This record gives sequence, structure tokens and C-alpha cells, in this order.
Amino acid sequence: MHMWSVAVAGASGYAGGEVLRLLLGHPELTVGAVTADSSAGRRLGDVHPHLVPLADRVLEPTTPELLARHDVVVLALPHGASAALAAQLPHTTVVVDCGADFRLTDGAAWERFYDTPYAGSWPYGLPELPRADGTRARHDLAGARRIAVPGCYPTAVSLALAPGLAAGVVSPQDLVVVAASGTSGAGKGLKPHLLGAEVMGSMSPYGVGGGHRHTPEIAQNLSAAAGAPVSLSFTPTLAPMPRGILATCTARLTAGTTPDEVRQAWVDAYEAEPFVHLLPPGQWPRTADVVGSNHVLLQVAVDESVGRVVVVAAVDNLTKGTAGGALQCTNLALGLAETTGLPTVGVAP
Amino acid sequence: MHMWSVAVAGASGYAGGEVLRLLLGHPELTVGAVTADSSAGRRLGDVHPHLVPLADRVLEPTTPELLARHDVVVLALPHGASAALAAQLPHTTVVVDCGADFRLTDGAAWERFYDTPYAGSWPYGLPELPRADGTRARHDLAGARRIAVPGCYPTAVSLALAPGLAAGVVSPQDLVVVAASGTSGAGKGLKPHLLGAEVMGSMSPYGVGGGHRHTPEIAQNLSAAAGAPVSLSFTPTLAPMPRGILATCTARLTAGTTPDEVRQAWVDAYEAEPFVHLLPPGQWPRTADVVGSNHVLLQVAVDESVGRVVVVAAVDNLTKGTAGGALQCTNLALGLAETTGLPTVGVAP
Amino acid sequence: MHMWSVAVAGASGYAGGEVLRLLLGHPELTVGAVTADSSAGRRLGDVHPHLVPLADRVLEPTTPELLARHDVVVLALPHGASAALAAQLPHTTVVVDCGADFRLTDGAAWERFYDTPYAGSWPYGLPELPRADGTRARHDLAGARRIAVPGCYPTAVSLALAPGLAAGVVSPQDLVVVAASGTSGAGKGLKPHLLGAEVMGSMSPYGVGGGHRHTPEIAQNLSAAAGAPVSLSFTPTLAPMPRGILATCTARLTAGTTPDEVRQAWVDAYEAEPFVHLLPPGQWPRTADVVGSNHVLLQVAVDESVGRVVVVAAVDNLTKGTAGGALQCTNLALGLAETTGLPTVGVAP
Amino acid sequence: MHMWSVAVAGASGYAGGEVLRLLLGHPELTVGAVTADSSAGRRLGDVHPHLVPLADRVLEPTTPELLARHDVVVLALPHGASAALAAQLPHTTVVVDCGADFRLTDGAAWERFYDTPYAGSWPYGLPELPRADGTRARHDLAGARRIAVPGCYPTAVSLALAPGLAAGVVSPQDLVVVAASGTSGAGKGLKPHLLGAEVMGSMSPYGVGGGHRHTPEIAQNLSAAAGAPVSLSFTPTLAPMPRGILATCTARLTAGTTPDEVRQAWVDAYEAEPFVHLLPPGQWPRTADVVGSNHVLLQVAVDESVGRVVVVAAVDNLTKGTAGGALQCTNLALGLAETTGLPTVGVAP
Repeated sequence: MHMWSVAVAGASGYAGGEVLRLLLGHPELTVGAVTADSSAGRRLGDVHPHLVPLADRVLEPTTPELLARHDVVVLALPHGASAALAAQLPHTTVVVDCGADFRLTDGAAWERFYDTPYAGSWPYGLPELPRADGTRARHDLAGARRIAVPGCYPTAVSLALAPGLAAGVVSPQDLVVVAASGTSGAGKGLKPHLLGAEVMGSMSPYGVGGGHRHTPEIAQNLSAAAGAPVSLSFTPTLAPMPRGILATCTARLTAGTTPDEVRQAWVDAYEAEPFVHLLPPGQWPRTADVVGSNHVLLQVAVDESVGRVVVVAAVDNLTKGTAGGALQCTNLALGLAETTGLPTVGVAP
Repeated sequence: MHMWSVAVAGASGYAGGEVLRLLLGHPELTVGAVTADSSAGRRLGDVHPHLVPLADRVLEPTTPELLARHDVVVLALPHGASAALAAQLPHTTVVVDCGADFRLTDGAAWERFYDTPYAGSWPYGLPELPRADGTRARHDLAGARRIAVPGCYPTAVSLALAPGLAAGVVSPQDLVVVAASGTSGAGKGLKPHLLGAEVMGSMSPYGVGGGHRHTPEIAQNLSAAAGAPVSLSFTPTLAPMPRGILATCTARLTAGTTPDEVRQAWVDAYEAEPFVHLLPPGQWPRTADVVGSNHVLLQVAVDESVGRVVVVAAVDNLTKGTAGGALQCTNLALGLAETTGLPTVGVAP
Repeated sequence: MHMWSVAVAGASGYAGGEVLRLLLGHPELTVGAVTADSSAGRRLGDVHPHLVPLADRVLEPTTPELLARHDVVVLALPHGASAALAAQLPHTTVVVDCGADFRLTDGAAWERFYDTPYAGSWPYGLPELPRADGTRARHDLAGARRIAVPGCYPTAVSLALAPGLAAGVVSPQDLVVVAASGTSGAGKGLKPHLLGAEVMGSMSPYGVGGGHRHTPEIAQNLSAAAGAPVSLSFTPTLAPMPRGILATCTARLTAGTTPDEVRQAWVDAYEAEPFVHLLPPGQWPRTADVVGSNHVLLQVAVDESVGRVVVVAAVDNLTKGTAGGALQCTNLALGLAETTGLPTVGVAP
Repeated sequence: MHMWSVAVAGASGYAGGEVLRLLLGHPELTVGAVTADSSAGRRLGDVHPHLVPLADRVLEPTTPELLARHDVVVLALPHGASAALAAQLPHTTVVVDCGADFRLTDGAAWERFYDTPYAGSWPYGLPELPRADGTRARHDLAGARRIAVPGCYPTAVSLALAPGLAAGVVSPQDLVVVAASGTSGAGKGLKPHLLGAEVMGSMSPYGVGGGHRHTPEIAQNLSAAAGAPVSLSFTPTLAPMPRGILATCTARLTAGTTPDEVRQAWVDAYEAEPFVHLLPPGQWPRTADVVGSNHVLLQVAVDESVGRVVVVAAVDNLTKGTAGGALQCTNLALGLAETTGLPTVGVAP
């Protein structure tokens, strides 16, 4: 079997570590160079002790020359760093960016939320995303050589709400989303509020009032699904767990729509999808059930007394929300079966 | 100093244990009888080992005769049990019910959500709650002999949203609330989904779509604040922490209202309140900071781009959300200073 | 490729669920019947929502007839239940017992710690265990048709201490072990002290003073390694995490032994082992790094000032400590490569 | 009532924050200056949001002039910083050091474990500690003007083992201790291994093999209790909880001693102590039960088959293990009742 080599730039962070974890389980991809910035020179066994089979690999400095020797380059870098690096990689190399640099199609939105110059956009790596024109995002990904992997919140929220918007059973106006994330979503940077003693036993919000950088990305996805601009209130919260996102997403019910029609929109959207699962009626998603897995678990309820639909999605922010999504896109780019090598079972309890 | 004796019925549960913890720190109340049902006969040291000074007290069976020998009776019983018991206690005894039996003023709402007969309503024990008529709920509590203490979610959500509704800066229509609770909020009953191995590392929703019993209670409070019926979507979630509620509450901004006017509504409502604190701009509440304390921490943001106000409240579900609220009401009923003996400092980290 | 069918009896518990999780990743084993007692008739999707690919399978009642239709039967039952069932299964069926019934070779030890009749012993399923005669436990497992999988604590502690005992660098007298376990190790039974609100934020010991049932099993293993009876103080503790065991094991240094000789004993024992890893000097095991993995991480230190060796081992109690060990033994029994299908990467952070 | 003013130097850390929390509940001590180094100028409300009543206080730079204006100065500084500062404070000021600088009486031991010059020793602030001469450590504390508060591990371990050593029922040779600490014990410094994503769900050891700085301090205390040098193997571990220490301490039983004699040693030592509690037989300490409290919970078991006594102690590392101990000593220094203002009830669940 042909094996494709994959370099991971930014391998010392949580996203990079998860890409490596998944590569070790992928039958047609091999781990190539692993690179880092300030951690260059360290053993992977020191940085990611859970990656036992790679313990003796050493992190190398990130250079375009080194990366260019691979079939695939996964970038797991701070925002702003991907654009310059990607420009120096061959057009024939598959470059999959886990950062934000190429996600937004609207330069003005980029500039409101980020402090580096707008770099343009790449095909958006959320294959299952329904769009108003009846296509899915995956149609842009087969054979692509540049892919922008979504953020973790956008993965959960977009997949949760898009079917109802695309089907017209909910209104694009006045979407309200509150999501809880495990603390690995905040990265490995040393910040006082991320210390274990601060986060254990505590819930707290951040980026309230529309300030979180994932807000325009979610709106972009949902507008594509609705075929019209959406209005979205998005509040993220930090939860005392290492991994997982639970997104509670509500939208106004379109007048005259029945609960059965609502549910059917999600059934239709995902019954053929391998990684997105609408649970049986009455069962609600738990983040623990997707830990380490590329699945999205969903449930939908209609609150007729107030005219709102509530959709709850659970994903692992590092797997489907980042690294699993990246390899799913890599599969599409390389012409492999989309599900190849991706975990479909959570590690619970 | 005169000491008032307090009996605690249902002392084996989490709410009862927290009432006892707070009574031990109250300078004018003493712990009287501690009663239970299936745990009668057990040492408190076995049931609540953290209550070291009461370790050798023994739980007695719950009888009206025993309870009636006290100045105050706090009921911490499953819903439906308080009504029968309260009917057998003297009218002159202060009876403070931590259960749901006497919270709802609308019998029809009770019957939609509970399976026991409607028992009527008592003065509602959330002293700070602003009402449309300009009074606070505390006006009904001074000298009261029957008080219905709010549920934990209603405490957090009602105090979060009521100021804006009372001031007219947000609309009573289309309120959307998502709240996360520590697992002690689900009580001490043995249910598989409450096992430690299930809850650690996991977030999950429940009672989605308007089904949670606290929904009508919150709506009742907010309607009283707005002076008009509210429409509320309420989704509770279970978070991997023992204590605490983080309520993220959003409401539509009234047309023409400025962010300063919005903030001022909350400043005006709570600047004189000892237990409800609007944080300085930019600081957001964390549940860890109210653990063991009777405080409510609040913050407000206006998301002008979507026309919504977001209010986040943190409370300890067992302290301000139950037992602290109960003793605050007891203070009012007995004519003591409202803050007497109540903790105002959280145990963090 | 030939696929072997595996029935799992007791599939509703944590051990059974983990066996199923690992079977889904095994290339030569297929999931056959999944059986339970009180949960028979339930969907696996309700009981183990993380096992998405098996969600629609239904738990069947446990009967020998059903189990006997498989190549392999894994028993994940309460102690005492395996013996009767195993007696009704064909001698040619591979029966792997995750329970305690057949672990102890000393009937008197069994009777001191268990309340069911002694049923005899089977080959002991800890392949890597060094023994005083120079063999490993795996020598009894190739082609075996009955295998007793070790308990989770015995896996960690025995592998931690056996090399030093077999090599004579530590004394079999006065071993002292303190181990911390995640709460899934206590099973899925509904006990008050296992509620999330009780375990989060808390450490507590149990079975102190030699009373834990794993004590004689550990002693049996270590005596086999030492070639002489050992004396062992073993204290287990419950830690606020779902999975994982951290065993801190100390033994008296044999007079005249150097630190290098001590370390060499562990190097020699495990350098060829695929699942047991002595970390580089200075790095200590963390349980998070083996979550979901079949690895054991070890480190050894010599405290010369007090004449003790300290060995720390981290394992996942459900993977290497139960289900992973069971499939590793199944591989040996069936003549497959010992490592086939077993995860070697932890899910961290 | 006379109020004593207390300055807290190093008020931005966890120990300093806990001193402030306890001062707010003390009836005869008032919060004076709160000082810090790099955090000087910040609002306490930003640094310790749980200390609501002090939210608007501002951290000042630490200077001897400022501190000297108080009756009491509590130092909560990194080791090495206390000595220079203390030398500039009046001899009449009560100075209570939560750091290590003045704990060790043996300069050589200091120099093996610390990298700053030996500064001498002060009376040791563990009032209940039994000593071989029949006195308690509190005899040196009444009226003292300089007090060295113990480390958190030494508090738990010394109180656990000292009674048996003082009574001669266990041997001073070959003590083996394994202790688990909440992560606040590691302080508020920004270290990668203390990030929430790293510590949640994980147990790990550190300072193994005698390297932890608390080792000589524990040995000093236990030698004083035994009246002879002890030999101690001490292994600390980091547990996924914010607060609490669970110390599992074992010692060899003195030949000919009965289990009743063993238990009696602990009964005698602590039956008159207000903060140290031997639990009823069969009940084991949990760290959750001492959160926020100045109590120590203990239990003792004799494992006759191996000739070891196992003593388990639970303390809150920040309360009795640091700040509570500091105020208990302050009470003694000022001639107040030793228990004044100290919490005796844990915040559980």
C-alpha cells in the first residue's frame, strides 16, 4: 500500500499532539517531520508522553524546506503564522491549516477579529456542512491542495444548526448559542486562569457579547447554510474538563413547522454521514462519549411554547474539532476514503 | 443574646447538610433536631463527615411533634413532602421550605410540571428580586411565618435578568437561558448518570425543550419583574464540578437603548444589595469564586451587532441557591439583620 | 483473513464496555453476542453511548448456550459468577475471565477474602510478569483455553515490583505500596460514595490494613517473582478521575546493591516488552498518558539515605488493567501476535 | 474588643489569599496592608475574586516600613525571601512565616535542600505536635514573636505519625509515606505541568526518592516525637483536585504491641485537641471533608499480618496546611484562645 508522508508543524501544542496521535492510527499516512518553535530540540517523549511510539523523535525547527519534503503538511500554529509559511510550500503539496488564517472569506470580518493582515481563504474543511445550494463543503475538498480546518466551536455549532437553516425550518434571525469547552481548547500557553487549581470545579464565560474570534466563522457557515445572513449571539464558556465541547444552540422555529418536520431536517442532513449522529429521541449528547473520537453527537428538541428549536452537539475539540477534521480533509484531498483511519469510538468513562 | 432554635427536616441530603453547615456559623441560630427518613438513626458524622462539630448527633425520624418544638423549621425534603408536614406545624413557627411545593402561584403551571396536588403558594424567598411595581420580594418576608425558598436555577437566572426587565431595557419576549450546574444540584439520589466516572470530564444537557421544573418558576419571577408575561427558553446542563451554577442569560435589547443604560439598570438594581454584585466591566463571574458563599456575581454585556444583552450569573447552588437563601429569609422572618451569619467569601481556589 | 468471534458476558459494566471498545479496533476479532443480567433487552447505545458503531445492538440474557457459539468468551462478571458459567462452556472455547474467580492458586487465601467457594485457578493473564524461574507468565498462555485476567491493581503493582524481586536487588520483606485509582475501578454499581459530587475534589483510602481483595493476588505474583513469600502492605485510594492507576511501590534495597544495578533490573526485564516502558531517568509516569492505552509506564528511584527503592507505575485500569490485558491474552491464546489490535497511544490531554 | 492589625506580604499567591479569607472571618484580627511583588498595583478583586469584601483593596509593594506598622505580619513569600525581610521588622512585631526559611533546625539539612543561605530557625508552628519529652510544640508558641509555619505535607504527615512514635508503638526506622496533594499546593506559578488540561484526570508523582524539600522537615518533626532519628521514605503525588492532602503513612509495629494499644496512642494524643480528630473505627478520612476547614481527620489501622501500622490523614493544604495554621499560631502569639476565628466545618460536597 502506498503510504503518504505527513509533516506536522507546531507539533508541541495540543492540536499538533492530537494530529500525531491520529496519524499513528492511520493505515495510509506516516509521521514525517515534527517541528516546533521554542520546543525545537526536545524529545517528543518529554512534550507528549502519551505518544509512546514517538517518544524518541526530536522536534525540529519549522522551515519550509523541511516541510516541503512531504506529501502533506499539517499546520498547527498560532494564527498569523500559517500564511507566510504556506506561501513557501509547493502548490502540489497538500497543506492543511488547523489555524484560523484561511477560514474567513470576508476580509473585513478578519480584520475586525484578528491583528494580522488578511491572507485570503481556502476551501473550508468541514465536509459535512450543508449549504443552501444543496451541496456540502466536501465538494470543494476532493483533491484540494489547500484546506482551512474549522475551529472547534464552529465545527460543533455549524453542524448543529445548519440543517435546520438549510431546510428553512428555523429562522436565520436571532440564533443564540452557548457552548462549553474543555480547557485544552484554550491551548498550552501559560496563562494564570488556565492553571489546574483555577479551572477545576469552576465554570466561567469569556469573549461574551460577540467578541470571540469564532463568531464570524460560525456566522459564515450558517449564512452559507441559510442562503441568507444570519444573526448570532455566541457565548463560549470554559468547563472543568480537559476535552470536549457541548454546544447548546437555539433558533426560532419557522411559523407553521411541526416538530416532525424539524427533526426530519436533521435526519435528512446526516443519515448518510459517517461521523455525525442524530441520537434517538430522548437521548442527549454527552461530551465524554466523543472523547478521542471523530464523531459528532446531536439531539434536537422543539420547545413549542416559546417557538424555539434547541439543538445540542457534543464533539471532542481536539479530534473532530481539530485534528480529526484535519485528517478527514487529508483523506479527501488524497483521494482516500473519507473515514480512513479515524476513530469512531469514544474513550469512556 | 437570644438564640433561636432551628430544626432541619431532611438533614441527610445535600441541601440539609448545607443548612447545617451554615447554622454552625450563625451567631443567633442554634441547631435543633436533625431529622431524616431512611437515614434516621444514623450518626451525622457518617452522613456528613464534613460537619465535624455535629458528628455525634443522630438523625431522628421526621415528625411534626418534634419539629414543632423549635422556633424555625427548615424543610429540605423531596417535592410533595413539605405540604403535608407544614400543615401540621403551628402557624407561629417559622417554616422555610427549600422544596418546590409552595413556590408557584399558578396551580395550572404546578400541575403541568409536578405529579402531586397543588398546595398553594407562600411568600417567595428571593429577597433581592426586583418587581415591576418597584418593590422587592423581601417586602413579603419580614416577619413571615411561611417562606418558599427558590430553586437554584431560578435564583441565578431571576437575579440575572430581572433588572433589565424591570427597567424595560430588554424585552420580555424570547429570553434564552443556558445554565450549567454542579452535580450536587441533582441531589444525593443514586442514579447511574450521577456516578463520578460518568460526570467527571463530561458536560451534558437535560430537561431540554422547556421540560425542566424550574422553567415555570423562572418565568413567574421574570414576569413579575417585567410586569408582563415572559417567553423563556431554558436549557440546563450538568457540569463536572460538585457545586456551582453558571447561568448565561440573553434577552433582546429594547430598541433605542444604549449600552450605558443597560448597565445602569443592573447597577441601580444591586448597588445597595449585600449579596448581589455586578463585577467591574470586563471581569466575568466564575463559579469557583462563590463556592460556599452567599454571593451572586454578575456581569452584563451588550452585543449591539445582534441586538442582545448577555448576563452571566454565578452562584453556589447549595449556598445562595438553597441553604444560604433559606437562612437569609430566616433572618428576615425573625427580624434579624438580613446578612447575619451568612458567608460572603468563597472558598477558592 | 480469518476472524474470530468474541462474546462478551457482562457487557453492561465498565469492564465489558472497554472490551467492546477494544474489539472494535481489533483486526482479527469480531464482536459477537453481548450479554447482561439486569440490563438485558437494553440497547448498547443507551448503556454505552460512546460505542457508536454498536449503538443498535441489544443486550441479551447471559446463557451458556449463547456464549458457546463463539470462538472466544470474555467474562466481565461480578466475582463468583464466572465459575458456574465457565463450567458449562466447551473446553475448546477460549474463556477469558476478567473477574477474580480463578486468579488465586491458594484456596485458603481465596476463602479469607471472598465469600463464594474456591473454584481453582487458571493460567494467569499477565504475560510480562517475570518469575523467579526465569520464565514469564506468558509461557502458560500460548494456546490456553482458560485464562484469569489480573485485577487492575495487581497489574500495576506486580509489574512495578517484580523485576527487582526476581533480580534480587530488593528484599521480598516489607514491601509497601500505596495506589490511587480512578473511580471506574469501583465499577458501575450505585453506591453513595461513588456519586460525582462525592468523588470530585476528594481523595480517600479504602480497604486499609490489608483488607483489599487484590492484596493476596499481588502477593502471589510477587512471591512468584521473588521465589519466596513476600510481605506486603497495600493501601488503595480513590482519586477524582474516571480512569487510571498510579501505584507507588517501595521495597528495601538489598545490601550492597548500587543504583545502577537497581535500574538495570528493570531495563533487563522490560526492554523487549512492547507494553511496559521504563521512562528515561527523571521522567515520571502520569496516568493521563496511558488513558485508553495498553501501556504501562514505569520509573524507578533509589533513596539511598533510607535504603528503599521506589517504583511508580501508571496504567489505565480499564485497558491494560482489565480489557486490554484480556485481549492481549486472547491474542496469545489464539496464536495471534501478542500486540495485535491493542492501543499503544494514550488519549491526552 | 481590641482588634489586632495583620499585614499580609505575598498576598497575591494562594497561601496569601487563604490568609485573607480566614482573616475576614476572624473576630479579633483585621486585614491591614496587603502586599505583593509583581502584582503590586492590582486590585484584589482581580487577583482573588472570591474575596468579595476586599475586592477594592489594592496590592502595595512589599516594604519593611509598611509591614512594620502592624501588630502581626504574615509572610507568604517564596523561600529565601522571608529572612531578609524579617530581619528588618521590629522584634516586638509578631512575624509568622508561611515559607520554609526558618523551619529547619539543622543548617546542613537546609543546605542540602535549598539554594539560599541558612537563616536559622524559629519556633515551629504546629501546636499539636507531640514531642518525646511530653510537651507539645505549642509550648514554644505562646507569646512568641517569630513563628515558622509548617509546610502542608509536614502538617499532615507529622500529626499522623508522631503519636505512635512518641508512644513507642511504632518504630522510627523505615517509615514509608505516600501523599497526594491538590494542585494549589504547587502554587500559582505558571508551569506547563500545572495547566488544567494536564492535571485533570491525572495522578503523577514528583520529588521521588527523597528529593522533596519537605522530607527533612517531616523527619525533624518525627525525630522530635520519637526522641531518636527516624528513617523516612516520602513520595508526594499531584492529584486532580484544587485543594487537600491525603497522606498515607505506614510504620513498623513495635513487637508485642496490640492493636488496642496502637489506637490508644492516637486517642491519647488528640482527644483534647480541637483541630485533630481520630475518626470512629472503620471511617476513613476524605480530603473533601476538610476543604476550607482547619481540621485534620485521622484514622489508624494495624495490619498484623505484615507488622505495619497505617495512618491516613486528610488536611486542607491551604487551611490547616498553611493559612489556618498561621492564624492558629497567631492566636497563641497574641494570647487569644487558640481556636479563635478558625473554621471547623468543611465545605462539602
